[in-house]
Amino acid sequence: MSKQNNLTLLTDLYQLTMAQSYFAEKRLAEATFSVFVRSYPPNRAYFVCAGLDDVLSYLENFAFDASAIEYLAAQKLFSEEFLRYLSELRFTGEVWAIPEGRIIFREEPLLELSAPIIQAQIVETLIINQLHVQTMIATKAARCLRASGGRPLVDFALRRTHGTDAGMKVARASYLAGFAGTSNVMAGKVYGIPIVGTMAHSFVSSFEHEIDAFRAYVRSFPHNAILLIDTYDTLQGARNAVQVAKEMAQRGESLIGVRLDSGDLVELARQVQKIFDDANLPGVKIFGSGGLDEYDLAELAAADAPFDSYGVGTRMGTSADAPWMDMAYKLIEYDHAPVLKLSTGKGSSPGRKQVFRRRDESGNFVQDTIGLRDEQIAGETLLRQAMHNGRRTAWTRSLSESRNRFAADFAALPESFKLLRNPSHYPVETSQNLADLRERTISKYAVH
Amino acid sequence: MSKQNNLTLLTDLYQLTMAQSYFAEKRLAEATFSVFVRSYPPNRAYFVCAGLDDVLSYLENFAFDASAIEYLAAQKLFSEEFLRYLSELRFTGEVWAIPEGRIIFREEPLLELSAPIIQAQIVETLIINQLHVQTMIATKAARCLRASGGRPLVDFALRRTHGTDAGMKVARASYLAGFAGTSNVMAGKVYGIPIVGTMAHSFVSSFEHEIDAFRAYVRSFPHNAILLIDTYDTLQGARNAVQVAKEMAQRGESLIGVRLDSGDLVELARQVQKIFDDANLPGVKIFGSGGLDEYDLAELAAADAPFDSYGVGTRMGTSADAPWMDMAYKLIEYDHAPVLKLSTGKGSSPGRKQVFRRRDESGNFVQDTIGLRDEQIAGETLLRQAMHNGRRTAWTRSLSESRNRFAADFAALPESFKLLRNPSHYPVETSQNLADLRERTISKYAVH
Repeated sequence: MSKQNNLTLLTDLYQLTMAQSYFAEKRLAEATFSVFVRSYPPNRAYFVCAGLDDVLSYLENFAFDASAIEYLAAQKLFSEEFLRYLSELRFTGEVWAIPEGRIIFREEPLLELSAPIIQAQIVETLIINQLHVQTMIATKAARCLRASGGRPLVDFALRRTHGTDAGMKVARASYLAGFAGTSNVMAGKVYGIPIVGTMAHSFVSSFEHEIDAFRAYVRSFPHNAILLIDTYDTLQGARNAVQVAKEMAQRGESLIGVRLDSGDLVELARQVQKIFDDANLPGVKIFGSGGLDEYDLAELAAADAPFDSYGVGTRMGTSADAPWMDMAYKLIEYDHAPVLKLSTGKGSSPGRKQVFRRRDESGNFVQDTIGLRDEQIAGETLLRQAMHNGRRTAWTRSLSESRNRFAADFAALPESFKLLRNPSHYPVETSQNLADLRERTISKYAVH
Repeated sequence: MSKQNNLTLLTDLYQLTMAQSYFAEKRLAEATFSVFVRSYPPNRAYFVCAGLDDVLSYLENFAFDASAIEYLAAQKLFSEEFLRYLSELRFTGEVWAIPEGRIIFREEPLLELSAPIIQAQIVETLIINQLHVQTMIATKAARCLRASGGRPLVDFALRRTHGTDAGMKVARASYLAGFAGTSNVMAGKVYGIPIVGTMAHSFVSSFEHEIDAFRAYVRSFPHNAILLIDTYDTLQGARNAVQVAKEMAQRGESLIGVRLDSGDLVELARQVQKIFDDANLPGVKIFGSGGLDEYDLAELAAADAPFDSYGVGTRMGTSADAPWMDMAYKLIEYDHAPVLKLSTGKGSSPGRKQVFRRRDESGNFVQDTIGLRDEQIAGETLLRQAMHNGRRTAWTRSLSESRNRFAADFAALPESFKLLRNPSHYPVETSQNLADLRERTISKYAVH
């Protein structure tokens, strides 16, 4: 699609106009920005961190190429001197972040970035763009996983994600949050995620008889076929699958399973299971799909529908019940002095921060404290250095480690915070030192 | 981010497993697929076509590169012979489509594609991926435009769109649907869309005094500055802007405007307008932003809030109240025989189609008829040939023509179909020939 290899120009114009003003005023001191989610979307009470890997790659490759500079020059907004400065600009800053896969709560900084203010400002847009969608989808995927009652889930969202990049990031974020695989072949290649596929209705309807389609498919995939049985009549489809499974058995092959994609899934799955049981084929798995989200998965689990696994698509891949989060990137320090914003409903807290987490003796989460970065507070510290002098640290790269981090944190998060509807809010307090700094900073600004 | 220049692998695995089966069975005849939206999302009763340009570019560049073939080989699912076939596969088909910018209704085919079935199947995923997000966002943007009461709108969504590709497509689709510009600099470069920018809260808070920030900014932009006045106290911010505007006037410069991004926008805008009026600066424009969508814009217009224009971000760029549509890509013909699908709630109609639109003597839309492509029915035909033998036709390229098409269609769509809530449903009928074909095709399948 659009040429997006060099993403540096993928920013808001005001980042560049502000940069020119900073440049003209020789305001080039170090600034620190903090990224956090201000409030919970409906029915959420936690977030699964994701997107750091892409943010760090972007920062390492940050550079305006010649064609970008040429385009900016044509806008007649920028001085030649400033454009020359931009053309040589690289990202040289420092990043602290909470590792991908960890579970966090509202107001907790998932990333803090310190750099000369022009650099720190221009990168805002893309940093939010990536952390926002990936954290939102990882959180949605975690909800689906919890709802499925232990059944494996596969990402089927690519066709209705918001564009190509979202398709890739949905596959990655849902895998990070415990999904078993994806239908997205490119995501399989780029991220090493297991890829999964069955067949489409069009395959069946391109043959004159459904059973001919099934026979053709298992000839090509004698050991890993899943047949889609709802193109015309689901129960007749199940009987056709039984016939094909018996033919396969005679050849020493076996049918993996069937997929249901429409209708009353609970009732159909029970009837299909009975057809396979009656045919003495209880090992044939039943795979469910068709516009499912965590609320549907919870209903299917509650009804004990005999599905072995599910494909989860559109509603997960768009986070359909909450398709955005109030994620902010706020200036908290300039030239070593704390700063803050007081806009109605959009306030921020000054100073570089750390999140301290306390657990009980079983390892379950008990309470977090947001404090200043150099404070000594009991508990595990969540923010780690992820980039130094514009180079990322090695621990930030591994998707499988992030997946393990999620699994461990999700197990340690008590149930009341994981409810699909009206979850409790996890206790997060502010340290006395941070509260004092906020008060002192507000007093300083009161003179305006 | 992910390497997405060659998008061919960005497909669902089942497209490739079905392709291998078609290949093994020597089922290589021509198939025709139809893309349509099955039903209206909440409060919608029309769609604005968008995304065709990207679909055609993708089809022209369709090719599995060596590293894609290598990855597929490693999956141990595909025969060597099939992979050799894939490595040489190009898209050689034909596309008919409704031009971008045109307004259409549910069930109407916005694109029909005819090609050897393997080609036609593999490209499904990306075709939906692009038409879905762009049509959804163009439709959302059209709703915002109608709600704004004629005030110009600018796309501010990039930071919270679902990834980078969505950020580009939101800028493009909203411009197509009448927006005046975007904050997205790369979209400005790639699509030639006007770019717009003001300043951020962080710029103001990086200075010790708000007025120093304003003075610094107008030094860099003496002829096109818009000052953000709500970082601390909006009315004091307005008074600081007055002071700066007066200083500018003495230098022969003029302040373009101010931006409000939080609080009670109606009340604040009135008070800010009064401050500028009292200071004898009535020409300073007031720009509104802050989580606005079409419902907010309609309220602001109803209250006659004195805003000159608005920035519209997150809720538009994610289509927040309806973040997905039920867009389908259905097989309607295989080897010159009509086919269809009967799955519960997901049926389709057989045969290549055309949409015929009748207007009244003022040019307003009256009724559409979905018929067969070669039928002679009164009215304008909406589907045009967009690709022949894998090469696109010239008319498909121009964004400005698409923007003009939208403006003309939107003006010709009667008001009752454009209501923001509970709009009427536009009359779309099926031709007798199409109904007959569907009946005959169903009878043929009844024997299963």
